[in-house]
Amino acid sequence: MKSYNEMTKKELENELENLRKITKEYKDMDLHLNIQRGIPCQAQLDLSMKMMDVLSSTSDLSCEDGIDCRTYGVLTGIPECKKLLGEIIEVPPENIIIYGNSSLNVMFDSISRSYTHGILGSTPWCKLDKVKWLCPVPGYDRHFAITEYFGIEMINVPLKEDGPDMDIVEKLVSSDPSIKGIWCVPKYSNPDGITYSNEVVKRFARLKPAASDFRIYWDNAYSVHHLYEDKQDFLLEILDECKKAGNPDLVYKFTSTSKISFPGSGIAAIATSLNNIQDIKEQFKIQTIGHDKVNQLRHVRYFKDLNGIKEQMRKHADILRPKFELVEKILEDNLKDLNIAHWTKPHGGYFISLYLEENSAKEVIARCNKLGVSFTPAGSTYPYHKDPHDNNIRIAPSYPPMKDLETAINVLVNSIKVVAIKHRLNIQ
Amino acid sequence: MKSYNEMTKKELENELENLRKITKEYKDMDLHLNIQRGIPCQAQLDLSMKMMDVLSSTSDLSCEDGIDCRTYGVLTGIPECKKLLGEIIEVPPENIIIYGNSSLNVMFDSISRSYTHGILGSTPWCKLDKVKWLCPVPGYDRHFAITEYFGIEMINVPLKEDGPDMDIVEKLVSSDPSIKGIWCVPKYSNPDGITYSNEVVKRFARLKPAASDFRIYWDNAYSVHHLYEDKQDFLLEILDECKKAGNPDLVYKFTSTSKISFPGSGIAAIATSLNNIQDIKEQFKIQTIGHDKVNQLRHVRYFKDLNGIKEQMRKHADILRPKFELVEKILEDNLKDLNIAHWTKPHGGYFISLYLEENSAKEVIARCNKLGVSFTPAGSTYPYHKDPHDNNIRIAPSYPPMKDLETAINVLVNSIKVVAIKHRLNIQ
Repeated sequence: MKSYNEMTKKELENELENLRKITKEYKDMDLHLNIQRGIPCQAQLDLSMKMMDVLSSTSDLSCEDGIDCRTYGVLTGIPECKKLLGEIIEVPPENIIIYGNSSLNVMFDSISRSYTHGILGSTPWCKLDKVKWLCPVPGYDRHFAITEYFGIEMINVPLKEDGPDMDIVEKLVSSDPSIKGIWCVPKYSNPDGITYSNEVVKRFARLKPAASDFRIYWDNAYSVHHLYEDKQDFLLEILDECKKAGNPDLVYKFTSTSKISFPGSGIAAIATSLNNIQDIKEQFKIQTIGHDKVNQLRHVRYFKDLNGIKEQMRKHADILRPKFELVEKILEDNLKDLNIAHWTKPHGGYFISLYLEENSAKEVIARCNKLGVSFTPAGSTYPYHKDPHDNNIRIAPSYPPMKDLETAINVLVNSIKVVAIKHRLNIQ
Repeated sequence: MKSYNEMTKKELENELENLRKITKEYKDMDLHLNIQRGIPCQAQLDLSMKMMDVLSSTSDLSCEDGIDCRTYGVLTGIPECKKLLGEIIEVPPENIIIYGNSSLNVMFDSISRSYTHGILGSTPWCKLDKVKWLCPVPGYDRHFAITEYFGIEMINVPLKEDGPDMDIVEKLVSSDPSIKGIWCVPKYSNPDGITYSNEVVKRFARLKPAASDFRIYWDNAYSVHHLYEDKQDFLLEILDECKKAGNPDLVYKFTSTSKISFPGSGIAAIATSLNNIQDIKEQFKIQTIGHDKVNQLRHVRYFKDLNGIKEQMRKHADILRPKFELVEKILEDNLKDLNIAHWTKPHGGYFISLYLEENSAKEVIARCNKLGVSFTPAGSTYPYHKDPHDNNIRIAPSYPPMKDLETAINVLVNSIKVVAIKHRLNIQ
């Protein structure tokens, strides 16, 4: 097929007419499809149902050091759970604090604590005139929502194929003491699905921030979330790199079991240097008497160790892979030759990131919405919902059944084509 | 037996010699008893073990409106859990937000949010020169620790038999706009075990605070925690009283199942006006994608309704009552005639509050510690750990087995007597 740029006006008009017929068919289907968020589907949830059986009324609910998990106490988490999450996030148990069911909450809490009490004796951010934050883009909307909530000024940094543009990061971080942090999803990033290269991780570890209370927010949400057995990205462990670089306190790592067991009822954790752990505990001991240890125990008794986690993740991949491949095939079959879009082909994570021609994403999403298919709102992958090129769409293939996913992506493809031609024909 | 004030010097010296023999016997027992905290004992934890069986791999984990509890979402809690906790805390479900496993965490969070973002549009407290807080004393040390952590100046208010001294509360709250809150444990208070009278609740509801962002922190931790079937305190529902008084937004109520099911793995909630709920949700939706709904479902499926809760609380009472009665009997038998102490006889809750002669509590606790029996540190029931009279000791009878409790209270009684006599004989 010819690319749209090679077509004559007449050819484009014919193509548009064909597309409109298809649009009409979708309209008549009265669709109600929602593929907005990266939510595990029911078959994925079912993978963890046996976890509901590992604790019963006859179980010993003591953890390995003999403490009764039913009662108060054990502030930072039970030892075997620290060990398990430590294996997932590649740090020793002593560098971990276990929280409740959501790593997002841990990140919110970390920023809130820095805002009210500072970090390791620094001035609380609420006492500063200005706090800024680096946001590799496109990125995760819920990250940006937290920094926006605290009135932190967000600065876009381009995300390249091997991670954020480190020339820009280094320059800004080393020169501006009001920059206090950066959001990173270093593996199978949301939404681009890229993994930071060894060089990028090392440059992060060697940063020389102007602010002593600058921290890298390393949200390793997809550390074990591979799609393929034979194509897996590798991410260098950053805490260790920071230590080697003489920057031991530079990073907060975050992890959770949200997309391993149950999204709403998992275990989240922060991993960081012992200095930072001590600093966080000063708040933690006031804030809580400890998080849900029975659920910690339930996860450990079910998964046992990293092998148990890996086995589970293979089952997740078997469900997710066909969905990613379906999306990629439809995009490929319909858009490859037209030269109006490109997209990522990630080895893991939850998203495919689609790039259209400039000033198209909002219009395309709006058309899809009108046809009953709702995607993540355009702009969501940028701070303040402002996509400067208005060209990025995040596709979340995980939740819908294959049939619905196929329909949704076909509607998307139809909308992309219509918008591309309308722009060429100057039709509003 | 004569009171110590009626004894001659010689009689006191003889008595002291006898007491020292007993002290020696305790010392030789090499005791290691800890009755510091109001922790449910193992038999109480065992009461909820069947809760571990209500959800299994074959259960339908959907809540009553059909939503799958395993996944993300349902920000403020599943409907049936709001209903259950609403029954406990006597408010409609729509006035409730369900949190994680700890009401302490909800209170911390509420103060932290007010500190960073204000309340219903008010100036965030971090931007104010001074924030003050009223603390009915004696009170709960973990409350005071939160306000201290945020640098909030705590002002003692005497707690009388029917609640805080409302003349003082009204005067301070109506005149000083820097006073932003008051800690209240309105039923079976910690540690005095008193319940606020109808008149006190009504005066609270009619407060006219100088600060629009003043809130009553109504920690109804022991709302259903009666010790007796025939002697139960009644507490007027304050949200309703506030509404009647034209002060609908004045109160944050807190509750949890910590001392109903498992202390470490329960459900906590805040209940307040719809205005306040909306205000809190502005933070909540950024902070989390929702708390653990599977655990919410587990609690509802196990307890079913308020009757289920009440039945459970009767079983708790059957375990706790003999412990309270044992402590009261030992205190009565040993101290009643001596005129050197008095103590509370609560109808519920977790504590007996013991008042000694002035400047005695620290010394008595130190003696007990030396004998291997650790009580809540003296001063803990006051802000900044400063008991102005140094005379209050919080006794937590729940955790130790009867035998250990008996020994611990006998050691306490021995120490109280020794200190009282030493003071009279001017012995260091």
